Amino acid sequence: MRKLNSSDSNFYSSLDELLSFDATLSPEIESRVAAILADIKSRGDAAVIEYTNRFDRREVKEIGELEVSQEELKAAFDRLPSHEQQALQTACERVRKYHQHQKQASWQYTDEDGTLLGQQITPLDRVGIYVPGGTAAYPSSVLMNAIPAHVAGVPEIIMVSPLRGGAEQDRVMGAAWLAGVTRIFTIGGAQAVAALAFGTETIPAVDKITGPGNAYVAAAKRQVFGQVGIDMVAGPSEILVICDGKTNPDWVAIDLFSQAEHDEVAQAILLCPDEAYITAVEQSIEKLLPEMPRAEIIRTSLKNRGALIKVADLDDACAIANRIAPEHLELSVEEPTLLAAKIRHAGAIFMGAFTSESLGDYCAGPNHVLPTARSARFSSPLGVYDFQKRSSLICVSPDGAHALGQVADILATGEGLPAHALAARLRVRTE
Amino acid sequence: MRKLNSSDSNFYSSLDELLSFDATLSPEIESRVAAILADIKSRGDAAVIEYTNRFDRREVKEIGELEVSQEELKAAFDRLPSHEQQALQTACERVRKYHQHQKQASWQYTDEDGTLLGQQITPLDRVGIYVPGGTAAYPSSVLMNAIPAHVAGVPEIIMVSPLRGGAEQDRVMGAAWLAGVTRIFTIGGAQAVAALAFGTETIPAVDKITGPGNAYVAAAKRQVFGQVGIDMVAGPSEILVICDGKTNPDWVAIDLFSQAEHDEVAQAILLCPDEAYITAVEQSIEKLLPEMPRAEIIRTSLKNRGALIKVADLDDACAIANRIAPEHLELSVEEPTLLAAKIRHAGAIFMGAFTSESLGDYCAGPNHVLPTARSARFSSPLGVYDFQKRSSLICVSPDGAHALGQVADILATGEGLPAHALAARLRVRTE
Repeated sequence: MRKLNSSDSNFYSSLDELLSFDATLSPEIESRVAAILADIKSRGDAAVIEYTNRFDRREVKEIGELEVSQEELKAAFDRLPSHEQQALQTACERVRKYHQHQKQASWQYTDEDGTLLGQQITPLDRVGIYVPGGTAAYPSSVLMNAIPAHVAGVPEIIMVSPLRGGAEQDRVMGAAWLAGVTRIFTIGGAQAVAALAFGTETIPAVDKITGPGNAYVAAAKRQVFGQVGIDMVAGPSEILVICDGKTNPDWVAIDLFSQAEHDEVAQAILLCPDEAYITAVEQSIEKLLPEMPRAEIIRTSLKNRGALIKVADLDDACAIANRIAPEHLELSVEEPTLLAAKIRHAGAIFMGAFTSESLGDYCAGPNHVLPTARSARFSSPLGVYDFQKRSSLICVSPDGAHALGQVADILATGEGLPAHALAARLRVRTE
Repeated sequence: MRKLNSSDSNFYSSLDELLSFDATLSPEIESRVAAILADIKSRGDAAVIEYTNRFDRREVKEIGELEVSQEELKAAFDRLPSHEQQALQTACERVRKYHQHQKQASWQYTDEDGTLLGQQITPLDRVGIYVPGGTAAYPSSVLMNAIPAHVAGVPEIIMVSPLRGGAEQDRVMGAAWLAGVTRIFTIGGAQAVAALAFGTETIPAVDKITGPGNAYVAAAKRQVFGQVGIDMVAGPSEILVICDGKTNPDWVAIDLFSQAEHDEVAQAILLCPDEAYITAVEQSIEKLLPEMPRAEIIRTSLKNRGALIKVADLDDACAIANRIAPEHLELSVEEPTLLAAKIRHAGAIFMGAFTSESLGDYCAGPNHVLPTARSARFSSPLGVYDFQKRSSLICVSPDGAHALGQVADILATGEGLPAHALAARLRVRTE
């Protein structure tokens, strides 16, 4: 595992190199996806059935076979062992409670002229949630996408996922049932994104699509953006741990593993001012890695993209964290509140040694869909606010129109827009 | 001007045809922009100077010539006639006051286990504002982009604009001075977007770029998205007027003109249940159009993209408005509050006959950067919230970790992520 020291003269260039990740899109994937989108747009259900049979190796004859009923969702939940049912329920309740704090309400005020100003805040009409199939069919992902939409008051939540049966499917469908998903279609890939964006005879067009997916899904989401809203297209997952050297080094090692086990391009970095502690974490890594079921993925991720970084002090660590703008930031220190106030850019801040990132991934309450690839500099966790939108409200009184009309007249005339100026002037009293 | 009736059997397909607009990107522009971006990224200031000299026909030798000082901004403001100074100041104050209502504050709560949960809300570090040059160099656009960033607390607001001197330049620079812009560079086009996204030796890299521009600017913003945040790429401007037939028809005609005068692809539509009133508006249009300085643009816009639509009643009008999801919606009716409550999708709602859209464009307070092309279904006016971002806060107590660790353990195990499960389990008390 790479070791860096922030006092080295070339440290920041080494850091930039470590963080760089080639997210170049494949022109071949882009053009294959464009063809699928156009085909679904023009041929609807028939094209959905064809692509699903071809790519997902199914033998569907009618579009109805691709929809799962609420009764089937409930039955899937009921088939889960009771400890899994309870765990999903606890996670669902906590996530719902947290997200209720995010719901925004319309507001307005009246100025001295009697003019009313404000914003009317409303939920989206209908949203689509993409849930990957296979081993990446995560029930937690269903909760984290569907619950904010549900809390926002979105009346219709349409989920798509290329489910293939078995226990994974029961967990995903059970989570969908708990989270309040309205309809599910067992389709995936670019064809599912297209069906949600354009609508077909059977699958209703949505206003926004969220959720993770492979390169085809990501390309499809980018291409339909504008037609519908999308969430961020996510890059590889990242964790940055800042430790004061007082946490059990095994805990830090496992927290680094829990990010690295996602995939070989995931990134796990430790910042610590204590050289001896860094060595201790290194020893924990060597000791614990062989026991991990996903050891090979973790080893590759840590080797290629991980780092243990010696920093001058905790302030230095915060400065580096703000440069990295990590998706997940653990402040494994005794005084996390002081440090958190110095963090300007991070998707989620996990404070204190007891707050492992995995608790936040599943059930602490906050969303696990977070900005990656330094985009925490300008974007936010998925939230209820992503499923609400605002309309400005303006009701100008006759007195207001008299005053404002004169101002708008001058500004519109200056901009060379005479109809704007005249529209304002018409509302100015002349007597 | 096209006339439609919502009771016609093919009405909704005619409406969809009227609304459709080919926003296909030009592959040639895309590839020219990609080359400019790559060149600015690798050669910095030198490339900025070259492209500026070539495209903007300037003879700049040093990058310093492209920066405008705060003293020059102030001098530009001072050169404006006093009625323009006062109009800009009034607009600035009202826009600032309105946007202060949008500023969001960090929040947190503690659950029964002593676990702290919340969101830390912070301003972006540095943003870039693009302001077009020439006749589209609108001072109102400077105010509408810079003030929300300033209210959000963004410490550095970098503006770029290919200014060419004269009264327009004084107005734009004066507005920048009032609105609190930090630095201005007189550059434009894809090269300006690239300089903001990647930074050069002189021009600092920003975290988000907002503001309108031509096809090259729009393509450049799309291409740098991910590297930095961007606002929506705007389509042609639109107004939908719902009138109960009681407003002076000249007012409605001029309000339709004030949208149509923007450009030939702008869209102006009237919905009214009163056939005789529609005829009256038509007569006002014929009477007033020849007097308008931008009559040719208005005529083309109204002919190709405008419509007068007879509706069954005002509820029918609201249903059609929700289908259109217009950028600007005027409710030119006696009871606008009742109607506004039925509107789910609109960028801004202008309520009552005195509220002309042009008052909102300049000085009522709300932002004039609004979602176009039906995107009001899923997006919002530009606001302070676009210049703030959120970090989730999670500080799990030892009791919380004991309880949540068991839940996360079950869910992570179900998802096949054993390091996640172990990280959670390590925080569960064993005694």
